[in-house]
Order: sequence, then C-alpha cells, then structure tokens
Amino acid sequence: MNEIERLIALLARLPGLGPRSARRAALQLIKRRETLLEPLARALDEAARTIRPCSTCGNIDTVDPCRICADPTRDAGVVCVVEDVADLWALERTGAFRGRYHVLGGTLSAIDGVGPDDLRIPALLRQAAAGGINEVILATNLTVDGQTTAHYITHILAPTGVAVTGLAHGVPVGGELDYLDDGTLTAALKARRAAEG
Amino acid sequence: MNEIERLIALLARLPGLGPRSARRAALQLIKRRETLLEPLARALDEAARTIRPCSTCGNIDTVDPCRICADPTRDAGVVCVVEDVADLWALERTGAFRGRYHVLGGTLSAIDGVGPDDLRIPALLRQAAAGGINEVILATNLTVDGQTTAHYITHILAPTGVAVTGLAHGVPVGGELDYLDDGTLTAALKARRAAEG
Repeated sequence: MNEIERLIALLARLPGLGPRSARRAALQLIKRRETLLEPLARALDEAARTIRPCSTCGNIDTVDPCRICADPTRDAGVVCVVEDVADLWALERTGAFRGRYHVLGGTLSAIDGVGPDDLRIPALLRQAAAGGINEVILATNLTVDGQTTAHYITHILAPTGVAVTGLAHGVPVGGELDYLDDGTLTAALKARRAAEG
Repeated sequence: MNEIERLIALLARLPGLGPRSARRAALQLIKRRETLLEPLARALDEAARTIRPCSTCGNIDTVDPCRICADPTRDAGVVCVVEDVADLWALERTGAFRGRYHVLGGTLSAIDGVGPDDLRIPALLRQAAAGGINEVILATNLTVDGQTTAHYITHILAPTGVAVTGLAHGVPVGGELDYLDDGTLTAALKARRAAEG
C-alpha cells in the first residue's frame, strides 16, 4: 500500500466518510498542501500532544481539570450525566446549562459486556457520596441502553440523598442528543423532572 | 480557538464532512489516538513529504515520473486526457485502459477565467507535436466546460495529425466520471469514437 492509499484508508475510517469521499478528501488535501494538509497534520499532532480527558468529569480538553470544571461561575452542585463528549458539546451549545458534567464514556450494555466499572459510574458515586452535589441530571440518550444506565444510576445514587432528575419529555424517544436542535434541548433541560426509581 | 476547535474547523473543510460530522470525526480521532489519530497524522506528514505531481502527465504519485508513465507495459502511444486525478483513478479502477494519461488540472472556463495556459494543455500539445503519440482519447466530463475543453483540444491537436477520439456515448450527459460505475466506464472506453471537430 503506498502513501496515497494509506491516507485514503485512514480517512475512510472517519465517521461520515466512505471510500469515495475519502478519495476526494485525500485529493483535496494533496491539492491544498499549504492551506489544508499541513495545517491538519499540525492540528492532529497538537491534539495528540495536548488533548487529554478531564480527571474530574471525563470531558476532553487541553487542561486538566477541564475549563468547565475549573470555571468558578458554574454551579458545582448540579451535575449533568451524559454518555459521551458529543452530548456534552450538544448541551453546551444551548447555553442553557450552567452546572457541571459527568461523562460516562458509554452506556451499560449486557450484549457488549459493558458493566458499571467500565464506565465512569464509580467516580460519580464517590463524588455524590462525598457531598457538595445537590442534583444529578441524567441526560443519557432515550435508547434502551441509555435508559437502563439512567435507571441503574438512579438506583445506586438513592442512598446518597442527592436529587436525581431526568431531561423533560420533549426529547424524542429513540433519539440521540447530538442530533437534536438546540431549542428542543433547551426546553428539555428547563422542564427536567424527578427520575422514576 | 483551542486545539479541539481548530481540528474540527479543518476537518469541516474536507469534502463530505459538515460541521456535525467534523465534530464526530474529531471525537473519534481523539478517542482512538493510537489506532487512528497518530497514524493519520503520520500519513499526512508522509503525504506532504513524498507525494508530488508527475512532471510528465500531471498524475500524483510518490515518484516522478509516476508509476503509470514509468510502466513499460503500458502503451505510450495512447494518451487519455482527463480533468482531474480522481477521473484517472476512476478509469484505472476499470482496468480497461492500458495506455497513459494526461491530467489537465481542470477545464477551460470563461466565468472562472481559466485559459489554456492555466491547464496542462501546452504540455499536451508539445508532447503530441514531438511525435510518438498515435491517439489522444478525450475523457473530460460531459459538462459544458468539459466539452468546451474537449473541442478546444481537438482543434489545437488537428495540425499534429494525431487521432483524437472521445469516450463513447454511454456516459450520461451532465454526469461526472468519478461518480460512474466501472461497467459504464469500461463500455464507454471500448466504444470510443472519433471526436467531432
């Protein structure tokens, strides 16, 4: 495999790019060496060097703790639990949430053999048990695995006495947070309700 | 703009990726640092360092002349003229052509101010005038600009006495080569006909 084919094969592994669009992307990169290829190569190097997970919340950033955890104007007493960083970004784009996040890194899944210890669930429990959190908002996706995960977290947080809420109806059932418009997400955040145990 | 935002902005400039898919691609890259991000950064560096245009035909390769121009089993007497490297790749995938190529790098365009000297047309004319070419197959796209370019090349090649042919009907009018199936391209190559002056 030569350098062009290797580049195309790697680009084709990005979500959203198939073999044909990977070929077009590779050609575009080679044609725009100074304005696209070299900047992208540098940006990837920079990303590999500087981006790390936040040891507090699981978000990714170039600093640890991340800018959200380190922001004193945000309410540390309200923690929004999301599956993935993409969901955190979707909620941040609404500007409607001024608390902090906890990124699970996935959902519980019997089929894929994902248990609580494979996600950042123990860290959430420790944080809730240590005090300082008034409310945990469960913003996992409204899929079977997302809701199973939410029920599990509601269950294990019960002894801590922390209020556990979920996003309001308004998020379509079966939908994924990252694909929703900001208005629906804002409404769902504002009308959040107590979670069913 | 931080490192993550810069990476997303650059990915969004690739054809086929919008802002949302660029975000997903960036997350995927950051999550798969060792298996995707670092290999892609290396592949881009390698590409920037090694890939260059072939000084004979305008194809891109890691060697100059390119592997096609350097291949002694290919017929140097038949030259297929294409707009872009993507079109060359599309024809190569059919395996139906054993001659050489000449990549123009675009089409003549009055609106965009692209004249013959902005494309690799003078190089083609010199090559044809120098002898050794029996046939030039015009495989520009069946768009207005592609056909204008084909007519122009037919016209300027006339004094050289080189036979000028075009791809057979079978290529849909208004279509682009890179989007065609291999079977249609193979049929169009086999049934090529004399170009209309």
